[in-house]
Amino acid sequence: MPSPEVEQYFQTTEINTFSVNENGEKLVFSTNLNGEYNLWAMDLPQTFPYPLTTINQKSSLLHIGPDYIVATFEKEGDENYQLHYLPLSGGTPLPFNERESSSTCFHACFTSNNEMVYSTNHENPLLNIYKTDLQTNQTTLVQKGEKAPVVVAAVSSNGTYVFTETYSNTHVAGFYESTDGRIPLVPDPSIPHMIRDVLFADGIVYFTTNYEKEFCYLASFNLSTYEFQPVFTLEQEEVTSIQLSTDRLVVSTEEGVKDRLYEYDVSEGKLVSIDTPCDVINKMIITGQGSLFVLGQSADRTDTIFKRDTDGEWTQVTNTKVLGVQEGSLIKPDIVHYESYDGLSIEALLFRPRYPNGYTILCPHGGPQKVEQMKYRPLFQYLVQSGYTLFAPNFRGSKGYGASFEKMVEQNWGDGPRLDCVAGMDWLLQEGIAEKGRIFAMGGSYGGYMSLLLAGRHPEYFCGIVDIFGISNLLTFLQNVPDSWKPLMNQLVGNPDKDYDKLVRDSPITYVDHMNSPMFIIHGQNDPRVKIEESERIMSQLKEKGLDVKYLLFEDEGHGFSKKRNEIIAYKEIRAFLDRQVNE
Amino acid sequence: MPSPEVEQYFQTTEINTFSVNENGEKLVFSTNLNGEYNLWAMDLPQTFPYPLTTINQKSSLLHIGPDYIVATFEKEGDENYQLHYLPLSGGTPLPFNERESSSTCFHACFTSNNEMVYSTNHENPLLNIYKTDLQTNQTTLVQKGEKAPVVVAAVSSNGTYVFTETYSNTHVAGFYESTDGRIPLVPDPSIPHMIRDVLFADGIVYFTTNYEKEFCYLASFNLSTYEFQPVFTLEQEEVTSIQLSTDRLVVSTEEGVKDRLYEYDVSEGKLVSIDTPCDVINKMIITGQGSLFVLGQSADRTDTIFKRDTDGEWTQVTNTKVLGVQEGSLIKPDIVHYESYDGLSIEALLFRPRYPNGYTILCPHGGPQKVEQMKYRPLFQYLVQSGYTLFAPNFRGSKGYGASFEKMVEQNWGDGPRLDCVAGMDWLLQEGIAEKGRIFAMGGSYGGYMSLLLAGRHPEYFCGIVDIFGISNLLTFLQNVPDSWKPLMNQLVGNPDKDYDKLVRDSPITYVDHMNSPMFIIHGQNDPRVKIEESERIMSQLKEKGLDVKYLLFEDEGHGFSKKRNEIIAYKEIRAFLDRQVNE
Repeated sequence: MPSPEVEQYFQTTEINTFSVNENGEKLVFSTNLNGEYNLWAMDLPQTFPYPLTTINQKSSLLHIGPDYIVATFEKEGDENYQLHYLPLSGGTPLPFNERESSSTCFHACFTSNNEMVYSTNHENPLLNIYKTDLQTNQTTLVQKGEKAPVVVAAVSSNGTYVFTETYSNTHVAGFYESTDGRIPLVPDPSIPHMIRDVLFADGIVYFTTNYEKEFCYLASFNLSTYEFQPVFTLEQEEVTSIQLSTDRLVVSTEEGVKDRLYEYDVSEGKLVSIDTPCDVINKMIITGQGSLFVLGQSADRTDTIFKRDTDGEWTQVTNTKVLGVQEGSLIKPDIVHYESYDGLSIEALLFRPRYPNGYTILCPHGGPQKVEQMKYRPLFQYLVQSGYTLFAPNFRGSKGYGASFEKMVEQNWGDGPRLDCVAGMDWLLQEGIAEKGRIFAMGGSYGGYMSLLLAGRHPEYFCGIVDIFGISNLLTFLQNVPDSWKPLMNQLVGNPDKDYDKLVRDSPITYVDHMNSPMFIIHGQNDPRVKIEESERIMSQLKEKGLDVKYLLFEDEGHGFSKKRNEIIAYKEIRAFLDRQVNE
Repeated sequence: MPSPEVEQYFQTTEINTFSVNENGEKLVFSTNLNGEYNLWAMDLPQTFPYPLTTINQKSSLLHIGPDYIVATFEKEGDENYQLHYLPLSGGTPLPFNERESSSTCFHACFTSNNEMVYSTNHENPLLNIYKTDLQTNQTTLVQKGEKAPVVVAAVSSNGTYVFTETYSNTHVAGFYESTDGRIPLVPDPSIPHMIRDVLFADGIVYFTTNYEKEFCYLASFNLSTYEFQPVFTLEQEEVTSIQLSTDRLVVSTEEGVKDRLYEYDVSEGKLVSIDTPCDVINKMIITGQGSLFVLGQSADRTDTIFKRDTDGEWTQVTNTKVLGVQEGSLIKPDIVHYESYDGLSIEALLFRPRYPNGYTILCPHGGPQKVEQMKYRPLFQYLVQSGYTLFAPNFRGSKGYGASFEKMVEQNWGDGPRLDCVAGMDWLLQEGIAEKGRIFAMGGSYGGYMSLLLAGRHPEYFCGIVDIFGISNLLTFLQNVPDSWKPLMNQLVGNPDKDYDKLVRDSPITYVDHMNSPMFIIHGQNDPRVKIEESERIMSQLKEKGLDVKYLLFEDEGHGFSKKRNEIIAYKEIRAFLDRQVNE
């Protein structure tokens, strides 16, 4: 029997969102089960799915009403998610408002009285909030965005609601729209903080916020006294989503590479950890009977919906697989921690192949303020199946380790994170996992930049570099970003005038002379963030000095892959490039 | 919410075959769940399916081995089903023998020793039987077809087998290939009879046959004494398929419009009826634990796999639906019986709409030696949802009511079956279900012929006729059939010379003068069985006399619809034609 091809790792069934009705008998989900995204349903406890739509469009938000479904759909990937309704038994989704077709619904909440409250940029770039009567399809404007974009966050049974105002990507305040006017959820909404999830309980609003703290925690807002109260915090964990059952809250948290679940008994103030069937939690819903449904991701499993009954038992509701890959043969990474050059603890994912070929790939993630989580990654699985050890460190600057950790990459692109990667490699050598000179560096965007920088400053570790959409020169990179990004980029990367020396020192192109291992550079012709010159300039310099450089240009891609067929081509070529170095 | 379109009745998930492994933990099925036919699997008791192939080809035969799957696949509808193997976790199916690609596997049986015995027309138009060792993929010829096509029917655990020889479509004999040579299963294999299903039990072969009887029954053949023995017969029921559990046989039977299931206790000789979750049984399998799996069809449900546990409880394994049609709103027909002109009892399906519009459609089936069974029919469901009452009589000549009943149409196309239809309409009038002058006749092939004939001989009943690929003149029809069919056609229809008067009397075109209701005639340009002239001649005569005749010609169809898009066009036009008469 032939072994699986790279295509098979990509031909997976994805589930991007789901909903369950109140009695737990109907589950609707947005999935590419038939090749294109459509809504499908199942009549629980039966888990055989049947299609509800044939429009081949992705949905981002779903609500199951008593005799209708409300869902947003985009058009051909335009990310303009528009609200539609369709019969419970499926059919052609009809838009609530034809004129909203080129605008986006940011969020919608539903009351038990067949009312929908939603935010859209249809008539206002700062968004408005509207209320629609789902029986009459009559819509009224209830709030205009004035200073900042307004998004409805939660609606109470009597129609009052909480909305957020977004001032920056680290400052989102929440307000209760009461008969007394808008009341902030926190004492001083002008202090930068985030509001992540909000729900109405009896006389209280629960929400998650990092107001005056490093990590998000659970807080409450009393609907009579308007009093703000922290409920509980967790060490080194970000409390993100909340769901309410009759007598308890279920909360999900983020802790570096993976998420966790807890049950919080409101009356007793007791927090209990719930065993979690997946690594990352995308969405959760509690039904009226108290069953918990979770859409989860894992490093070694494709998107899966799980159900936890009130007895605490988890069962799989969906069962998607990687075609042709044997049960249990996807690799789950080890979560490892090591001490960096300055004593900082760094978390990393270590994928150990069943049959190691002796070569290791260091995979710095992009962002840089992102995080490598325990999610299914086709390329990682494909390479680790092929015998490569993969090492993905969440170097300083990564999200999920607190606000201070995340800030450490700002105006310090080339030092701290790079030395975290080097310390990671040293740890691998020390543990006998990797061998010096038998390491590849591979990454995209910031990860490509880091791979190039490591190649220039620590060439002795490497036998090959894969740079995807990477930056070779921070100065030209900063020159080329759109004007509107420049203030943000000064903050994140540095000022081209003031920080000139540091930016030169942190640019891979400065170290071309030291680079000595074969390189594979991939770029998209239309990349608006990292211009193609970033790849082409360093390539020609490396070629001039006689280095083995392979270059792959995609004429129909920008920053990141939008087309699976291109991604498959790139990953096949990456595999071939790696194998060539191994077999030499 | 808009009501379902005809397309939705066609966009259904079909399941054409399935298999379950011995321990009942893996179910594999051939389905168009993702739009094209592929193999999908489920890990029972989980019923969420995942794909095993992406080749978009239908499979007709499936076997789940310990670490592989054997399946036949056709190529783009060519009906050349060829044996392939693939890993249990899915992948690209590989053919056992590349050279068999343009031939067809007629049947394959599997032993517990990883052996496969199969029949193909690869090297011999009368077929050969081969044995393949599934570990080594080594194939040996074990039997050549000499007098008639040979098909392997069942294989014992020690590798001996039963095969059939097909002499005509009503004469199929079975032989046990023993160390003593071939032994017939019945005392005199030259007497015309059928063998329908065969299985090996301990020291015995069970099979279903109509040897010397009107209906098929269960018989046994002793492997030591070679003795033939009827086991049990059923009144007016055709015993068709058998499956063996440790202590009992499960048999399925055909009784006119629907199938039944029974359990037969071999040691006690006791037959017990099993309650059946569907109307028609396509396939059944018993696992080692005694669970019974059935692929069923029903008039009001699309293809469904059911499971019956040893406690007798049925559960649905699959859950396919008609997109946009509300739960429970597909119409299940009544099974009715009425007395015909000569006292013969006729069975019919009566579809009663939820909101009748007062009009009835008489639907004589094609064949004529076929049967209208309780199966999901998109057009029927679409029309009955639209308010039409549908009446589909199994007039004399239909299959499933015994050999004599079936013969009654032979050389008597225009009398008995026609009067059965008339008696059916009279019964409808008498019961107050239909109204004279508010009846349509609609049918394809022989059903189109019958609709035309009724229009000419009983015009007072009708307000419109829909004739699809129908025959208008039996004499020209007989002239135009391929030469090789002529002996068969003489037997079935009559001899153009000897039976000239009868054939004129039974030809619709003889009664053009009496026809007075609007007609809709549909034909396929390439029809090899009923030439397009059959429609065009009567159409021009009807138009000449000023009748309202609508004609729809499909340039890319033959006898019957091969393309769903054409079928949808035709059915929309039929609906429009019917509605026009109703609204006039």
